[in-house]
Formats: sequence, C-alpha cells, structure tokens
Amino acid sequence: MNILPHGGLSLSSLDEQWLQPGVKGLPITEPLRQGAIGVQGWRLLHGDTSFPVAILHLSALAHNLAWMRDFCARHGALLAPHGKTTMCPQLFGAQLAHGAWGITLATAPQVQVAHRFGVRRVLLANQLVARGDICALLQLMRGDPDFECVVLADSLAGVARLAEEVVLHPPARPLPVLVELGLAGKRAGCRTPEEALTVARALAGAPGLALAGFEGYEGVLVSDDRGADLRAVTAFVDGLCALVLAADDEGLFSGAAILVSAGGSAWFDLVARGFARLHGLTRPLQPVLRSGCYLTSDHGMYRAALAELDAREGGDGAPGQGLRAALEVWSVVQSRPEPGLAILGMGKRDASHDAGLPVPLLTHRPGPGAPQALPPGCAIVKMNDQHAYLSLPDGPLRASLAVGDLVGCGISHPCTTFDRWPLLLAVDDGYLVRGALNTFF
Amino acid sequence: MNILPHGGLSLSSLDEQWLQPGVKGLPITEPLRQGAIGVQGWRLLHGDTSFPVAILHLSALAHNLAWMRDFCARHGALLAPHGKTTMCPQLFGAQLAHGAWGITLATAPQVQVAHRFGVRRVLLANQLVARGDICALLQLMRGDPDFECVVLADSLAGVARLAEEVVLHPPARPLPVLVELGLAGKRAGCRTPEEALTVARALAGAPGLALAGFEGYEGVLVSDDRGADLRAVTAFVDGLCALVLAADDEGLFSGAAILVSAGGSAWFDLVARGFARLHGLTRPLQPVLRSGCYLTSDHGMYRAALAELDAREGGDGAPGQGLRAALEVWSVVQSRPEPGLAILGMGKRDASHDAGLPVPLLTHRPGPGAPQALPPGCAIVKMNDQHAYLSLPDGPLRASLAVGDLVGCGISHPCTTFDRWPLLLAVDDGYLVRGALNTFF
Repeated sequence: MNILPHGGLSLSSLDEQWLQPGVKGLPITEPLRQGAIGVQGWRLLHGDTSFPVAILHLSALAHNLAWMRDFCARHGALLAPHGKTTMCPQLFGAQLAHGAWGITLATAPQVQVAHRFGVRRVLLANQLVARGDICALLQLMRGDPDFECVVLADSLAGVARLAEEVVLHPPARPLPVLVELGLAGKRAGCRTPEEALTVARALAGAPGLALAGFEGYEGVLVSDDRGADLRAVTAFVDGLCALVLAADDEGLFSGAAILVSAGGSAWFDLVARGFARLHGLTRPLQPVLRSGCYLTSDHGMYRAALAELDAREGGDGAPGQGLRAALEVWSVVQSRPEPGLAILGMGKRDASHDAGLPVPLLTHRPGPGAPQALPPGCAIVKMNDQHAYLSLPDGPLRASLAVGDLVGCGISHPCTTFDRWPLLLAVDDGYLVRGALNTFF
Repeated sequence: MNILPHGGLSLSSLDEQWLQPGVKGLPITEPLRQGAIGVQGWRLLHGDTSFPVAILHLSALAHNLAWMRDFCARHGALLAPHGKTTMCPQLFGAQLAHGAWGITLATAPQVQVAHRFGVRRVLLANQLVARGDICALLQLMRGDPDFECVVLADSLAGVARLAEEVVLHPPARPLPVLVELGLAGKRAGCRTPEEALTVARALAGAPGLALAGFEGYEGVLVSDDRGADLRAVTAFVDGLCALVLAADDEGLFSGAAILVSAGGSAWFDLVARGFARLHGLTRPLQPVLRSGCYLTSDHGMYRAALAELDAREGGDGAPGQGLRAALEVWSVVQSRPEPGLAILGMGKRDASHDAGLPVPLLTHRPGPGAPQALPPGCAIVKMNDQHAYLSLPDGPLRASLAVGDLVGCGISHPCTTFDRWPLLLAVDDGYLVRGALNTFF
C-alpha cells in the first residue's frame, strides 16, 4: 500500500520484508510482511499496538511536503533535505516526489543506505576524511554513472586526503567538493574567507577533484538574542555569497553550475533570501537548502523557530497554516505511585531528551472516542532509559488518570527520536495505522 | 567464528545473515556475510573500518563475565543481568554461559527478541499493562512450555489488568508476578509495605496469577551524599526482605521457591549482602541480581561506582582487577579549525550524552604501532547529532593532532551507547576485528 509517493526510489523490498516479533511498537506474535501492516486495522487509540509506539501523522507530512515545495518555488531555491534527520527511505522518496533536488547526508554509511534505495543525488554535508569512507563513496560513483555525490572540505589536509584516494581509485568524473565556511568558536569550516579561498584554489588545482561551490551551516548561530542571531545569519550567508563571487572572479569553478548551500531548520528563509541576492556569476547558481526537520517539525526546539519563520514569510499565525508537528510517541501509564506522578513506559530509548523533554499532549483510555488534551501543567520532568516521569498538576486528572491509560507526547528535536525507532507507524487523523516507515541508523 | 560462548542460544542466523553496505562501522561496499567479518583482518588502528565505529574489547568482556560469575558464587546470589543494556543476543549467550540464571528485560518487545534467540528464563522488571503486550507474553508462554517469564505489578489496577488477560488467554501455568516496592518521590513501585502486601494478597488470590516474590530497584537512590546513599540502599533491601518474610508468614506464596530481586549496577554488592541475611522462610529463596552494566563498565558514571564496589569487596585497587571498561567509540578528526579545537566525526547518534559526555582516551595516526594516550585536559565539550567538539589543552598535541587521525573515546552509561549501534565490532587487544555483535533496539 503506497501511503506516500515513492519519488522513483526502490522501496518494494521494504514492504516485502518479514518483520519478526520484537520490533518496537508492533503488536505481532508471528512474523508479518511489512506491506500488510496497513490492512491490519490497528487503532492506536484502541490500544492495538505495542507500547511505546512512535507515529507519524500522514496529514501533517503531506501538508509539510507541500509547504516546503511551495516555499522553495517561491524563493527559487533547491532543496536537499537533510536525510540524517529521518534516515527513512520512504520519506526520502516523498521528498524527492515533492521536487527535492537531492538528499543531504552526514556520513558515508548514510550515503550507502540512500544509494541502496535509489537516491541518485547526495550532498554529503560533512568533511570526508576516513580512508575507507572515501573509498566507499568513490566505489558508489564508479559503479553507478548516474550517482552524483558532492562532499565538503575545510582544510588543505582534507583536500590532500581526498586527492590521494581519487588518484588510487579514479572516478569517471572529478569528485565535486564544496569548501565549508565556518564561524569562530563553532564547528567545522574555514574561519576566514582567505582560508576558504586557499582551500578552493587547492581543489581547483587537484587532479580528480573539482571545486563545486561553497557551503556553511548557519544553525550553529544560536544565542539568547534572537535579533543578533538574525543579523549574524544574514551576515554569514552574505559571506558565503561573497566567497562564491570571489572564486568565480578567480575562475576556480569548472562545472556547469556553481553550488552554494546552507540552511538548517530554523533560518532557511534567511538563507534563501540571501542566496537570491547573489548575481553576476559566470555560470548558473544552484542555491541548495538543507532543512531536515521541516518534514515533521516538533513540539519543542523547532516549533518556536518555525513559527517565527512562518511570521517572517507573511503567515498570519493561523493554527496549522505553517509547518505542522507530525511525530508523536505514545506510551501507557504503568504506575500511579503518587497523586502528582504517573510513570509512563517510554524513556530515553524512545524519545528525544537532548533539546528538551517530550511534551505531553493527549490522553485516552483505550477504546472508542477521541483523545483528550492534557491540561496545562502536565510535564515530563525526567526520563530514565525506559521510563518517563509525568508530573500532574492539581486538578481532576490526578484522580482520573489510571494505570493503562494512553499518553501521547510531542517531542523536541526530531533527529534524536527518529534514531530510536527502526520502524515508525504512519497513521491517519483517527490514529488508524495505515502503514510503516523504516529507518536505517 | 565463535568469539564468545553461546550459552545454548540459537545465534547461527546472525552469522549467516548478509549485511548490506551502510551499516555503521562496517567498511564494506558489497554485501558481506556477518560470520565472515572475523576473517577480514580489519585493523581499526590501520583505519580499516568505517568511522565512527563502536568496539568491544573481548579481553575485558571475558574478564568481566568471569568476575561476575565469581562474585555471585561468593555471595550465593543468582544473576539475571539486565538485557536492556545491550539487547545483544551474543552477549546474552555469553552471560548465560557464565552461569546467569536468566535475562532481565524492560519491555514486551525486548522479551520477544530474547525469546527468539533462545532465552528461556526472563525477568521482566517492569509493570506490564498494555493489553497487546500482556497478550504477546502470554502467547510466548503458551507456545513454549519451557519459557518462564516473571513480571511486575505495583497496584491493584495492574493486577486487575493482568488477571483480565490471563482469563481470556490462560497460560499452562499461573503467571508469576513480583510486587514492586518503590521509594517516595522516585519511580514506580508501592510506596509502603502495606500497599505492597495489599497487592501481594490480590496476586495470591487471583486465578491464573501467582505471587512469585518481591522486587525493587535501589538504583534510584543517588544523591550527593554517598554515605547516606549506602545506608538508604541497605535499608531499602532490608525492607524488601521484611516484605518477603511478612508475605511468607501470611502464606501468600504458592510456588516451589520465593524470588527476591534488586540490584542495578552501582550497589549490587549491598543488595547481595542484604539478601544473604534473609533466613527463616518456608521455602527456598532465589535472590536475583540484575546488573546490566557490569559487563562493559564504562569510563564515566559506573567507573567510580564500580571502583567503590570493588573496594567494598576487598579489592586492592590494582588496575584491571575490578570490572574493566570494554566499550569504546572511535572516530576520525575531520577538522582542526582552531588551535584548541578538533571536530570529530562522532555525535549524539554514536555515543552516550545523557550521563556525561564521552571521555577521550587514545589517539593514533592510521597505520602500525600502538595508540597514544591523550594528555590530561583533553575533553569532549559538546556533541551535535554527528559531531563532537574535542577541546585540546596547551601543549604539543595542538600542533600534532591532524585531520584524519583516529581518536578513541570511552563512554559514560553503556545503555545509551549500545542503542545507537545495530552492530558493534569485537576486537582483540591489538584492535584486530575478531567478529561482530548485533543489537535489537
């Protein structure tokens, strides 16, 4: 059952695989063909799944996919959504079907996974330095002339490592490389335009390598001063654009187009606007955004950032108009040991805890009917590996919330929830399970 | 190749499976049969693997397995190591081969995984309340008369949920249940002995259920006052023992033996000593410890706790005599953007960050020779999803550590590193890869 468009990827092997009992969230006691999940009639709100279970709302995914397609069209930007967020081939396929130019990834094994399911254009937004990992990517390129992979370098040492392996294992075409521009005190990337141009010149002169463009990650610009962050992001994007112009002036580019890329999930509108100001190049520009978390948004770190982004885009703040939260983790109340405390069967193994704890949203006693919103004051105050501590405010919930009741939580930071679930269940608006999505971490 | 004893488990399907390119840590560009990993001759220190890679030292595992077997023999305790730590069938097998009485687990899907590989005695150290999860376990018991599974309850509501499903899906023998004793302000478990005895009486009177004993988790007793913690743990264990005696006096037990269980990975000596003081029961006592992290120890939260434990056990503090750290994550320096900073290709996806960041131990330039200890002052100061920030102290390392160099890190809290690796590589003392271990999260 195709619950999402496949975007040309080869996903049938996933539906054909037999799932064994013991996959988190799956209420099976015998092996089940994955493709049959959507016809089981499992209703989460009836307690039909195993718990905890991670679900994705199909309607929110569809909304967000269309939102981002329209955003990129409006800004003239290309999208290579960061696949490390989900590592989910079915979601890669849906993104490609909605016009994504490629998929961004962070490591060589991630690229191998994407390639295996048919992704044919990858931006590896990371330095590629381990010998075996360089060889693995060169092998993919040699074995598949249709496969394009752009990688990063931010040092002459990095360029030398790439050059060495390219000589030993020459690809059919030069390996395209972006120079990474960084920021003082932050992560990787050249600290000055001069350093970046030095690396760019080395790439332009290295046999088997090609300078493809410049790249940066403005997502590291997070402080307590949002106004200052906005200015810093814009200045950083302007700096990237200036590098592109300088390298073009020097004639360092050799490809048909020039690639410039930035854009995490909080500021990608500023990045798109910055790239749109870049004119006067000798060849076409490919401005590539890389947001990974737009697809599911969240109830935490990205919720606020994306609401601000929506406001900058002219959104009127109407509920559901901007990007919608698609990902929830549901668990069962397994203990009510104290009046103000419920222990949930969901822990650090099941939900993000690195950028805010899960946000309790809904509760439901298994059976018919709709879930109820939890009152203000409910909060997950702690998680162990397999348990969450749900604090209950004064009020009727303290008496009514019972062992066996379901609690649905939103999460903060999709990346660190996806990587805890080999399989997520896709549901309709009534929490009927319509299918399954796989991750490969 | 059997790198660890299998303890009677059915593990051959793992060696026979074909691994696809894209499994973290594996330097393969074609599918490889897992059983062939140990004969590839991959040397981590030569840079032969993909990076990052998680490794287990076989010598440390062997030492820790023997250490714990001897510890339990000395104290007359049984061991059901918490399998949720590793969720690794090969390690379950090695633990059973070293005399483990069973395997402890935390969720129904975890029990299904263990059963699938042949584990036949499980302590589910958790309330079991979701209908589908109760049914799944009853199904395992009905389908396999040799399979024993003990579960927990801490409320009449919990007992009622178990009783309801047992009536609908009766097992061949009554389902054995432990009453969980908790602590005020902590996690699950009855808050008073009276509550616990009320739950025990309900279990004793419920058709299809049997009171098997009492259980608690003293690991929640962590404060800044170690002396107070020691006293609190001992008092908690004494409370568990008093409950066992009270229930026996009332004639609530019906099985051949009485089970009492506690023991995380910090205080299990105190638990064993407490259980050894329990006498005067009408039937044999089974005192079950549940440490999961003894098997790998760590370089963080358990290192200090286990050194204290070793001292209490009369260890002389000689290096390597007590439990040894077996788990490391190795990654590559991918950027040296500032004199005091190296960016490693290892992030929150690869190593624990919930109880202290990874501990940088060793560095090596790929090739022959032994790795060098990193000097004091080296620290991982931050991690993103796929990156770590290694801070370098003043000194020669600032000039010598280069892009492409390997860095080996110890971790704090094994549970949250194991669950980031579908496959870990087992190495000998020279970091030659001898085989692979699978996890099922």
